[in-house]
Amino acid sequence: MSAKRPVVIDLKFSRVAMDEALKDAFPDREVIDLARPDHAGRDLGSAAYALLWKPDPALFKRATALEVLFSGGAGVDHILALPDLPDRPIVRFVDRSLTDRMSEWVVMNCLYHLRQMAAYQKQQREKIWHEIPLQPEARDVTVGVMGLGVLGEDAARKLKVMGFNVIGWSRRKKTLEGMETFDEDHMDDFLARTDILVGLLPLTSETRGLYDSSLFARLRQGGPLGKPVFLNAGRGGSQVEADVIIALQKGVLGAASLDVFEKEPLAADSPLWAMENVVITPHAAAASDVSALIRHVEAQIHRFEAGEPLEHVVDRWAGY
Amino acid sequence: MSAKRPVVIDLKFSRVAMDEALKDAFPDREVIDLARPDHAGRDLGSAAYALLWKPDPALFKRATALEVLFSGGAGVDHILALPDLPDRPIVRFVDRSLTDRMSEWVVMNCLYHLRQMAAYQKQQREKIWHEIPLQPEARDVTVGVMGLGVLGEDAARKLKVMGFNVIGWSRRKKTLEGMETFDEDHMDDFLARTDILVGLLPLTSETRGLYDSSLFARLRQGGPLGKPVFLNAGRGGSQVEADVIIALQKGVLGAASLDVFEKEPLAADSPLWAMENVVITPHAAAASDVSALIRHVEAQIHRFEAGEPLEHVVDRWAGY
Repeated sequence: MSAKRPVVIDLKFSRVAMDEALKDAFPDREVIDLARPDHAGRDLGSAAYALLWKPDPALFKRATALEVLFSGGAGVDHILALPDLPDRPIVRFVDRSLTDRMSEWVVMNCLYHLRQMAAYQKQQREKIWHEIPLQPEARDVTVGVMGLGVLGEDAARKLKVMGFNVIGWSRRKKTLEGMETFDEDHMDDFLARTDILVGLLPLTSETRGLYDSSLFARLRQGGPLGKPVFLNAGRGGSQVEADVIIALQKGVLGAASLDVFEKEPLAADSPLWAMENVVITPHAAAASDVSALIRHVEAQIHRFEAGEPLEHVVDRWAGY
Repeated sequence: MSAKRPVVIDLKFSRVAMDEALKDAFPDREVIDLARPDHAGRDLGSAAYALLWKPDPALFKRATALEVLFSGGAGVDHILALPDLPDRPIVRFVDRSLTDRMSEWVVMNCLYHLRQMAAYQKQQREKIWHEIPLQPEARDVTVGVMGLGVLGEDAARKLKVMGFNVIGWSRRKKTLEGMETFDEDHMDDFLARTDILVGLLPLTSETRGLYDSSLFARLRQGGPLGKPVFLNAGRGGSQVEADVIIALQKGVLGAASLDVFEKEPLAADSPLWAMENVVITPHAAAASDVSALIRHVEAQIHRFEAGEPLEHVVDRWAGY
């Protein structure tokens, strides 16, 4: 068998972005793009690599000789739950562009709530000129970042540059320069200090439903923003949406920015759409740049075929 | 005459913030706060220092022995135009808090437009889940900062950390590490490169009406955001508001964030309030922290009375 075995692609992405990026992808090997009608029925038996985002659950019945699986995004929960998942390395997508874009979203939303933009935009709609008296600055506000992987670490660093007081939490203790960090044994301490909670956790059995009423109740009340704020750009499965809604209605939370939801698209009848102080984006905080994704996969395949170790391999036991 | 001569205060600020901050201000000298009814008629003849924000135009007829004038904000245009202005040093307010807050506003608004939040918020109101295809990232976008004083330099540095490509303009050429800068002879080159224009200029005879149709037409068209974006958090007098409105209506500008206006409060019949892609804040980008202002003035008075040179003294000829 030749060293240049095919790559099979099953990415549930917008076609516009994909067509352009796939045009020149993997020039030295066959590309089977299951989204193309003329490729859909092809034999996948010789494919060595699979690039996947929410793939067809029956994929692994057809592609039985895969060597490496690549996730089309930072998360891998969409792969780990699949039936017949082969015992092969899964490589997550780590990319400067993805990281930068996630931090753009996080910093923008933290500043949006800090600067009370929901209230100012309401005033604008009503043509009211009024300076809101309560105006804490970033250094008065503690942002607690949950999840200190590549994304969380970059967001935390940029939040610090913007002046926020930043603390971090991860399941296993991480040491980050110039930042106080907490681990799973000290979550209460972390939450009690947090004015703005930024969720950047992967979806695992341990994080499913983690952001619930009990957790929101443990965030700092009466801080400089009055009530705590919840941001989630990790995975929707980590939040109990009914609890988010109740916490906002009862004033346990003062505001939220949500990019991810238990079920996407978010249902039209969700009360979240119309809630004041809630910013909703449609899982668009850090869309994968498909060109960057292809370059990343090409580079990892090159390493793999040269006998070098793969990078960003998922720990299946931990789930991320 | 005692070394501890009175300070007269005429700050048109919100009373809530001032009362608390003034309680313990200038403990070693008399404080005449003209906003207090019981102080309003006092003799100002012995006052050596005046702390001013949009003061009574007749002030200098009463306070005839002033040694130093302090501005309550970063700008001094509200003082320079006054009749009977004594030929004494004017000290502008430079403060970490003021600088940080201005950068919060600038970075938030640049990210808001980069991430097309006006469009996403419109979708949210209509309960539409749709990922907008055009999603440049910060490094694709050039932010041109006009005005490279303390505020402009800090905003530029933080915009760079967020990934933006940042260039700077000032009347006299300034050299900033890691940033391309332009002076008054190269304004066209600067504008032709700029996707988001950030106005942080003082109001002087040279900057009055500077942001007009002619200037907007010289900004880069067809950049990654489609059309250029205009931010102004300097002084309203620098913008020709009718031209801003026309440029937005005609699509010469794609969006704007305005914190300052030719006449404040902005008139209720201004079309700006209701324009899509326009963010309006009521001159609140960087409200002076009154406590920090008092500390700054106390420190400068201490220097002055100890025979040391004052800091942040305004160049009257330049107007800032």
